[in-house]
Amino acid sequence: MFRSSVNRDILSPISFLSRSARVYPDKVAVIYGELLFTYREFQARVHQLANALLAKGIGPGGKVVFICPNTPPMLEAHYAIPMIGAVLVCVNSQLSRREYLHIINHSDAKAVFVDNEFSPRIQPIVDELDKVELFVTICDDSCAPQLQGPEYEAFLATGATTPPAVEGIIDEDALIAINYTSGTTGKPKGVMCSHRSTYLHTVGEIIESSLGPDSVYLWTLPMFHCNGWGFAWAVTAVGATHVCLRHDLPQEIFGLIEKESVSHLSAAPNILLLMICYPEAAQVKLRRPLQILTAGASPSPAIIQGMEDIGANITHVYGLTELHGPHSVCAWQAPWVELDPDNVARMKARQGVPYTTSLHMAVVDPLTMQPVPDDGLTMGEIVMRGNNVMLGYYKDQEATDLAFRDGWFHSGDLGVMHPDGYIQIMDRANDIIVRGGDIISSLEIEEVIYRHPDILEVAVVSAPDPIWGEVPKAFVVAKLGRKPTENEIIEFCRKNHAQFKAPETVEFCQLPKTATGKTIKAQLRSREWLGLERKVS
Amino acid sequence: MFRSSVNRDILSPISFLSRSARVYPDKVAVIYGELLFTYREFQARVHQLANALLAKGIGPGGKVVFICPNTPPMLEAHYAIPMIGAVLVCVNSQLSRREYLHIINHSDAKAVFVDNEFSPRIQPIVDELDKVELFVTICDDSCAPQLQGPEYEAFLATGATTPPAVEGIIDEDALIAINYTSGTTGKPKGVMCSHRSTYLHTVGEIIESSLGPDSVYLWTLPMFHCNGWGFAWAVTAVGATHVCLRHDLPQEIFGLIEKESVSHLSAAPNILLLMICYPEAAQVKLRRPLQILTAGASPSPAIIQGMEDIGANITHVYGLTELHGPHSVCAWQAPWVELDPDNVARMKARQGVPYTTSLHMAVVDPLTMQPVPDDGLTMGEIVMRGNNVMLGYYKDQEATDLAFRDGWFHSGDLGVMHPDGYIQIMDRANDIIVRGGDIISSLEIEEVIYRHPDILEVAVVSAPDPIWGEVPKAFVVAKLGRKPTENEIIEFCRKNHAQFKAPETVEFCQLPKTATGKTIKAQLRSREWLGLERKVS
Repeated sequence: MFRSSVNRDILSPISFLSRSARVYPDKVAVIYGELLFTYREFQARVHQLANALLAKGIGPGGKVVFICPNTPPMLEAHYAIPMIGAVLVCVNSQLSRREYLHIINHSDAKAVFVDNEFSPRIQPIVDELDKVELFVTICDDSCAPQLQGPEYEAFLATGATTPPAVEGIIDEDALIAINYTSGTTGKPKGVMCSHRSTYLHTVGEIIESSLGPDSVYLWTLPMFHCNGWGFAWAVTAVGATHVCLRHDLPQEIFGLIEKESVSHLSAAPNILLLMICYPEAAQVKLRRPLQILTAGASPSPAIIQGMEDIGANITHVYGLTELHGPHSVCAWQAPWVELDPDNVARMKARQGVPYTTSLHMAVVDPLTMQPVPDDGLTMGEIVMRGNNVMLGYYKDQEATDLAFRDGWFHSGDLGVMHPDGYIQIMDRANDIIVRGGDIISSLEIEEVIYRHPDILEVAVVSAPDPIWGEVPKAFVVAKLGRKPTENEIIEFCRKNHAQFKAPETVEFCQLPKTATGKTIKAQLRSREWLGLERKVS
Repeated sequence: MFRSSVNRDILSPISFLSRSARVYPDKVAVIYGELLFTYREFQARVHQLANALLAKGIGPGGKVVFICPNTPPMLEAHYAIPMIGAVLVCVNSQLSRREYLHIINHSDAKAVFVDNEFSPRIQPIVDELDKVELFVTICDDSCAPQLQGPEYEAFLATGATTPPAVEGIIDEDALIAINYTSGTTGKPKGVMCSHRSTYLHTVGEIIESSLGPDSVYLWTLPMFHCNGWGFAWAVTAVGATHVCLRHDLPQEIFGLIEKESVSHLSAAPNILLLMICYPEAAQVKLRRPLQILTAGASPSPAIIQGMEDIGANITHVYGLTELHGPHSVCAWQAPWVELDPDNVARMKARQGVPYTTSLHMAVVDPLTMQPVPDDGLTMGEIVMRGNNVMLGYYKDQEATDLAFRDGWFHSGDLGVMHPDGYIQIMDRANDIIVRGGDIISSLEIEEVIYRHPDILEVAVVSAPDPIWGEVPKAFVVAKLGRKPTENEIIEFCRKNHAQFKAPETVEFCQLPKTATGKTIKAQLRSREWLGLERKVS
């Protein structure tokens, strides 16, 4: 399946499945409800899918779209498609028709696999998907295929369980996947990942999260999000067990944690919030230590404390789709055991230091590209280098050149470098609030409000103001049963922070979120600004 | 120090030190008796050594020999020398003058660093070391340098603590180290390791031994032996702590395990034997789980049981210098918990399955190169492929071509493939005993004798016989206080094994060992055969 000589193998995460199928053939690889697949069975299904695709003329270089929740077919896709040299394009299952149309056509997909829950979103645009030659419907929740084409299990049955007879991967820098950015600004861009970059990022995930053969990984993080930060491959690499999960419902999550003795999960803070707000969370007894990786937004002190109360340990990681997911980790330091919980939470909420496999991360002055002082105060842009940085954006050299200017990948996030070498995001570049001439970081205010005992979640954005041009406005979710007032919040900010940085107004509401759990600040901001155009420096 | 662009870093274990010095500057990196170095200090010393070497004209491609026990300078060498593109040549500290002469000259060494304990062995040959421009004596146990040239600490002091200003590594396939084989047959050969192969093997060690930031690694395994199987780099990579050790004395080993809360060590079975025979071993209370990797010879049931009695878990790994050390691991299988201790020991004594990073290992018919049946009976040669296979033998293309024939690395070891995919060595190729026409594996007989309750250690070799041509002879070490007789052992073998395979004679004695703990069967065999020449098929 991939080229190899006596002392040179192509670095590809595909190799992990053949190794685990050899070492642990009878061990459970995948659990999905009552369904179990051993590593032998998992590999056989992967080979079937690979062979079935080959028979349809899809091989090296062919793009295959998957729109699927965290069910076994989604895992199988992560091996079968790259194994024949084809390119996996996992697409967010919560997009609009327009977005699907753009991504499927832009990626040059020759095949589209859709879970039945989402096929109604694809059906209306089928005629506009010019290059697609094969539609496969995955029937999981319901049964009738809705798209013209085979049903997934029937399609699998057309392929042999033997390894596909194709030398699919002849170069470790070849494409393994294209992951589209969430496109909060402009059209989604196709992030190109190679076999090598993916292998090395996967190794990084194994090391940072101490995955081992007896680990049990619960799929709370969507695999369409940077291939589940690489865990689609990392869990297999060590011969651990995948526990699939269709919907992130707290009772299901807790049920599986108990039933399957889950040791690891990854999730955006909004899922963790769901978990700690689950009324029966307090009754949960964890049978083994639970390691949680979280990213997408800093976990609030309330979330960190809440998860630790039920016996889980949270590690904060940070990255972007362009970096295969996490690039940095807020690595634990032994002396932190001396700190009180608030300060531990503050330490843990930082974006941290590079992974063992990613190495380079700096906060630089955007004009000079020189590192800012490590004073925890001076803001600059967070930039990265490393083997886990994407090859580039698919069919967009201009955007690639812009992102790669000056020899670094530009995150667009603003941060500071602390004296201990840890990086902290102060703001996404377009979330700065300029009140008069004063620059206010919305995250800075959020951090203060998070310290208020009645607050569960907060998002601060800029709002228009006749005097100052713009001012901060806070959107706040109170803890269950708590009823803080607007004035209390504003006073709390004035007392605990620079007075001019206190929000002008506070609104109590639910926060809009992306499918991956990021608060969509742009939505809150545009509501405030109505149709006003605003140029951000 | 090494070339890097936005999405491509050279794979080099050198990167691990800069990462750990950034993430854990104040954490203890190295312990040696009362001496402690934090990661910041460790890195500063490494930079000093690198800069001092550069100032002496030693840079990219230059070979530097180290003859040194497991003290801090030996660790520093593993970073400073490759960092400037030079090549580290760690040499066994137990060699003869003649062997030192061969290795130092053959390696084209420009500099030789020698610990004072071993400088008397180098002094007499100094004039014959044509290419060496610099001798440095490491004064640890005693003080007066004995070779013409600086003392190590004084030499270090000539170098700045800042990163060396040289782009030393421009290609990940460049040489990082040459490790000489023990040369039990013929002259030692120089195994060439690249930055890439070493990086990937190191990652493999981290994954297989679950090293993490809170690990504490005790240096019982000589670093001159495959760079301590890569742990010289692996321990640093995860920001764990190295505990140095000059001599492998059991009271020191146990003292350090307790004092420093050691979590990991690697050792040949002879060191483990020393440990379980230590009278006070029974009183040892391990404060945390101790993971032991062992290789070089299969651990006997007595060793496995003895180590488990004091609370340590043994994992058996297998490899060769040509593979950077371990290539395979006897990976634990959950169902083995049902087995009785004898059968667990028998399972664990097998050489196992490839590492996650090495992937390929087979038992083949030496003529057809086809895999033998996986019946646990049919013998063949054990062959390997993978990113951890050496580049080749230094200045010996012929031997390289021979070792790499047919697209595999040839171990020269004979083994079987069990139905569960685990490989077991039946014999080193030249340890077969041909009794009449019957082929007898000496390991097979050893395994039987090991089951005898009075036996600690055994080695079986061929001895001349007027009737059969050759017959097996057993050299045996009894357990303390036990006095089995020759007849008892022979009868035990006859009862528990094919009658013709029982040893003809049994001798009670100490077994001759190499510096790395392998029994030197060749020595026992040649004693039996006196001056007789013998051709082995």
